[in-house]
Amino acid sequence: MGATGAVGQVFLDIVQQRKFPASQIRLCASARSVGKKVTVNGEQIAIEVATPKLFSEVDIVFIAAGSDISKAMAPIAVEKGAVVVDKSSAFRMDPNCALVVPEVNGDDLVGHKGITSVPNCSTTPLVMVLKPLNDRLKVRRVIADTYQSVSGTGVEAIDELRTQTAQIVKGEPVTKQVYPHQIAFNLFPHIETFKENGYTTEEIKMTMESRKILHLPNLAVSATCVRVPVMVSHSESVHIDFEGRITPDEVRKILSNAPGIKVVDDPSKGVYPTPLMAEGKDEVFVGRIREDASNPNGIAMWLVSDNLRKGAALNGIQIAEELLRRDLVGRKARV
Amino acid sequence: MGATGAVGQVFLDIVQQRKFPASQIRLCASARSVGKKVTVNGEQIAIEVATPKLFSEVDIVFIAAGSDISKAMAPIAVEKGAVVVDKSSAFRMDPNCALVVPEVNGDDLVGHKGITSVPNCSTTPLVMVLKPLNDRLKVRRVIADTYQSVSGTGVEAIDELRTQTAQIVKGEPVTKQVYPHQIAFNLFPHIETFKENGYTTEEIKMTMESRKILHLPNLAVSATCVRVPVMVSHSESVHIDFEGRITPDEVRKILSNAPGIKVVDDPSKGVYPTPLMAEGKDEVFVGRIREDASNPNGIAMWLVSDNLRKGAALNGIQIAEELLRRDLVGRKARV
Repeated sequence: MGATGAVGQVFLDIVQQRKFPASQIRLCASARSVGKKVTVNGEQIAIEVATPKLFSEVDIVFIAAGSDISKAMAPIAVEKGAVVVDKSSAFRMDPNCALVVPEVNGDDLVGHKGITSVPNCSTTPLVMVLKPLNDRLKVRRVIADTYQSVSGTGVEAIDELRTQTAQIVKGEPVTKQVYPHQIAFNLFPHIETFKENGYTTEEIKMTMESRKILHLPNLAVSATCVRVPVMVSHSESVHIDFEGRITPDEVRKILSNAPGIKVVDDPSKGVYPTPLMAEGKDEVFVGRIREDASNPNGIAMWLVSDNLRKGAALNGIQIAEELLRRDLVGRKARV
Repeated sequence: MGATGAVGQVFLDIVQQRKFPASQIRLCASARSVGKKVTVNGEQIAIEVATPKLFSEVDIVFIAAGSDISKAMAPIAVEKGAVVVDKSSAFRMDPNCALVVPEVNGDDLVGHKGITSVPNCSTTPLVMVLKPLNDRLKVRRVIADTYQSVSGTGVEAIDELRTQTAQIVKGEPVTKQVYPHQIAFNLFPHIETFKENGYTTEEIKMTMESRKILHLPNLAVSATCVRVPVMVSHSESVHIDFEGRITPDEVRKILSNAPGIKVVDDPSKGVYPTPLMAEGKDEVFVGRIREDASNPNGIAMWLVSDNLRKGAALNGIQIAEELLRRDLVGRKARV
């Protein structure tokens, strides 16, 4: 569901690249796309409307169509016997939902209640780095300031950045439809909705989801989430305080051996991750690993990952692969 | 000196806007601009080559032409009796140089030795916020992650962002001349030069200059400086740890009363500073003031200021105004 969206399109690319073992793929999207055809694995697939009947005919339902759709449809899909892999934030903090980054907490899929969720695109790279480090030395505090691309909002925001940029290049007035402020040649510390405590829901997610995924219910995490005029990939400047001293070399070694992470860290040669180099790649890229200048027990680093892939579609497919590997897909078990 | 550069042009705008009390203005730039005329206060001024004779005929020499030029020329200007206001980093950490943000440490101009320096454009907004807060409650630790515009590099980088953007809009290949990576629709954690400890000189400046300006030689400061595809204004996500608890309301009140600062903080109405709204303005804009979610004694906030104005030219002119007000301009004293 959401086959024509920014995440949905990448999802279908990855399904083909990874040869995901589907005997049949069915695609859903909003009413205006119904009947439109999309080619997957050389086969033309017509977009359908999602119905309870359709859910009863499939094993796994991927939803990347916004929280409201997830809230309405996921319980129906589960009732009809499918396992849901949901990209939205609708169920992530629900105790009955398995919120999973397979490299970090794949075990949390065991005993799932039908709905599994893909974490927020800025949470996933952070927990992938925190997990192996916390296994070595307890993490006390995390500060993360983000640089998030417009594709995190969706295709309409990619269009907005393109349109505004072209308007400025041509000297025309800038029009705004998606964001409250111009995004071309500008940026703003505002992603999703502000809450009473002055944090956005995006920032709160980074704290709450990290705690749930890492099983560290009291982990101190502070985030500032910023939208930047970049098309794809989210970057994060991260400062981690540990309960003791750990050297940058040791951190580099631990992360080099961690699944799904690629250390790209030779800054004096201009080698560090950038959004452009991470676009279309599966790994979380880590560079600028150094002692935090404000704390001898701290490490600072720079993370970049493709928010549409590891931040969304890829992680969803990896959850499905993990469900299959562990024989946790309900219908399959029933058959 | 540097009259045709990004800072030089803004400098001349501000001289006119503030009616800086100059009886005569003389302009210098590199050899290829000599003879070219620039209009200031309705008068056409021809660009000259900087010479010892010229220095002996003026009271104050502003230099915004790069560290090498400053290193070569500032001592000559001082020897000829002028006071130097230098924009570069050449002398900032020299114990004989007064490194000054007038609102913060104007008193450091007293007894100057001829060279005064404008702090780095990402240091100035930070110390303007830290000073009044530290006067109220001791600051223990500062983490600042920046979002710095290309104008900080100079006019050639503004051209590079414009050129690359136009190339991408037209579907042409992207050319690089100024930066090691594409800057259009991209960003990178690399400003100036990397040192052994993994920090850039830009990041080290934020620590060392803040300590000098605030007279806090042990202040713990950690920075990650990031270049973003924005034309003008630098933004900073700042996390401040205090020795005790201070509320966001109290911080808002202190900063609202601090000179040169404007609090712009009503995020649920979309009101927070952005680079675009700060461009061409004198103030340091502060928003997103909230308790740091990772420390009960911490405050997080978001700063934006025009790097060409308060980050460079304006602060330079304010130093000169302060020198005049305190009767600290050598030649004037001699006359």
